[in-house]
Amino acid sequence: MASSEHELIAKLVERLPPPGSRVRVASGDDAAIVEPSGAATATSIDAIVEGVHFTLPQFPLAAAGRKALAAALSDLAAMGAEPGEAYVALGAPEHLDPEQLLEVGEGLAEVAEREQVAVAGGDVTRSPVLMLCVACVGHERPGARLVTRAGAEAGDVVAVTGELGGAAAALELLSADRADGEPAIEDEIRGRLLARQLDPRPRIAAGRALAAAGAGAMIDVSDGLGADLGQLARASAVAIEISLERVPVAEGVAEVVGDEDRGRELALASGEEFELLTCIPPDRFADAAAAVERSGYRLTSIGEVGEGERGAVSDDAGRRIEALGFDHMRGSRAGSGDSGDSADSA
Amino acid sequence: MASSEHELIAKLVERLPPPGSRVRVASGDDAAIVEPSGAATATSIDAIVEGVHFTLPQFPLAAAGRKALAAALSDLAAMGAEPGEAYVALGAPEHLDPEQLLEVGEGLAEVAEREQVAVAGGDVTRSPVLMLCVACVGHERPGARLVTRAGAEAGDVVAVTGELGGAAAALELLSADRADGEPAIEDEIRGRLLARQLDPRPRIAAGRALAAAGAGAMIDVSDGLGADLGQLARASAVAIEISLERVPVAEGVAEVVGDEDRGRELALASGEEFELLTCIPPDRFADAAAAVERSGYRLTSIGEVGEGERGAVSDDAGRRIEALGFDHMRGSRAGSGDSGDSADSA
Repeated sequence: MASSEHELIAKLVERLPPPGSRVRVASGDDAAIVEPSGAATATSIDAIVEGVHFTLPQFPLAAAGRKALAAALSDLAAMGAEPGEAYVALGAPEHLDPEQLLEVGEGLAEVAEREQVAVAGGDVTRSPVLMLCVACVGHERPGARLVTRAGAEAGDVVAVTGELGGAAAALELLSADRADGEPAIEDEIRGRLLARQLDPRPRIAAGRALAAAGAGAMIDVSDGLGADLGQLARASAVAIEISLERVPVAEGVAEVVGDEDRGRELALASGEEFELLTCIPPDRFADAAAAVERSGYRLTSIGEVGEGERGAVSDDAGRRIEALGFDHMRGSRAGSGDSGDSADSA
Repeated sequence: MASSEHELIAKLVERLPPPGSRVRVASGDDAAIVEPSGAATATSIDAIVEGVHFTLPQFPLAAAGRKALAAALSDLAAMGAEPGEAYVALGAPEHLDPEQLLEVGEGLAEVAEREQVAVAGGDVTRSPVLMLCVACVGHERPGARLVTRAGAEAGDVVAVTGELGGAAAALELLSADRADGEPAIEDEIRGRLLARQLDPRPRIAAGRALAAAGAGAMIDVSDGLGADLGQLARASAVAIEISLERVPVAEGVAEVVGDEDRGRELALASGEEFELLTCIPPDRFADAAAAVERSGYRLTSIGEVGEGERGAVSDDAGRRIEALGFDHMRGSRAGSGDSGDSADSA
């Protein structure tokens, strides 16, 4: 390796936005020192691994950096927290040179800048594949309690931000890039789909709006809508009934997978969507939807919290929704309900 | 994989000590919620990777778990912080089954229990090799400011806790286990050396004592004494002069590497020692040494902060100490001063 670790770290830190006034000591010490905010903190940790969450060279290196920080921020968005500080461990494989590692850093820096997160510390180590682990601390906002998965109540509207299926469709497109036949979709729609993987946007403003509007429970769609509905239902000990027809499917998804039915299936199973799934009292839904819209996204009611079997998720015909989610342990889309459970414990 | 991820996580969480009263929401949500302590926080992140920081099967699986949490805690010890919450990302390779992953968890739980750390959240994902990334939050203690690397002043005593060289000697022993010829050392000494790798003890109580006694600067010996002296000298913009003869070498090290001279060299280069290196005003040294001794370790004066070239480290004969440290990027002991710089930026 031509550049020493010390130089590499210095160059990585150079690319980051300044850490802000609450960070008393940032990179360069044993630990970062952050001044107390006086508010409760929400802390998430997420690791993304080459070959599991992304593949090279289909993924630009900056996209790996963006995705790692976005995934950790999405967890904070789902609590309605204000992003604060991020800590990044970078596992660097021998097949990447320092310039390429800096591209990963550029991606991190881009998201940190846009979402106003201080990257306050990090660790660089050798690893057989590119690996990024991000711990992210958010702060409770004055007047808006952090929202867990556990507060859904019977009668709540079940709603989701944005549109689904795009993240899985983007993976199809990225692998189709190498093969011959590509689906015929417009460049603009194709670009929007690819961005779901290459530049995912955590729904921080929407999460803030939903928390302020009185959402009772919230989760980000990281394992697939079906699986994440199951998580919400179990954590809140409620039954959820959704209408499959109301699930918002991203434009272009049907074209990528062949038809609308398969598009809808994909929208139910697609992980890493980073949309927010929430349960909110019906009298607050209109205000919440308006507030989410101001943040740039739609809020779509897809069902309601019912009185049935606790932890159960069904459609309006009474059919059980299987947890067809992304299996983090297998690195593949799970076919059975059993293995679709989330790997994310905080 | 026989057990689902969900079951695996539940079993891992079962083994952990209860998270304590400050953790409002622990595992099972998007992020963990922690009540404000009102104190500044020190946060470190460390990743350890199979084949880089440990090898299987030479390392028992529980030892990988212990080492990952101990390394993150050692950074907090070097700030004089009170350990608070840890967040763990586990990269699980296919060559380990769920029972084996639980052994890793047992190791984490053991250290969490002993050091009274709440493992408040985590993430499990697939990975080509076993990988553990730990982010650890500590809290400033009332009346004792967190100690950085940057506060050393001319005239300070340079001192180190415990004895050095054992961590590198243990690696030799672990690889010698497979070969024929083993060094002839007593079982008890051999066991103590091996523990430096298999059950490293972060010097939390010593760090607390040093912070309270007025240490101006502190760092944990993770890259090798020579390299870490350089880090301290650069961060504090001071010159450091040490006496090589006063560097405390762990019992058995000379026997493992052949003679006393090579033992002393190893003590200077050996990384992951997790001892504390500190600069402290001379009038406070005796109190500090007594307090560290009460925590179970010696505090040895090895030199002093001088007026020379800022960032320089030399011995009492005026020879420059090269930074012969552990190179996290190469996963090997570095032979040149250039690459011995730390990979640890917070």
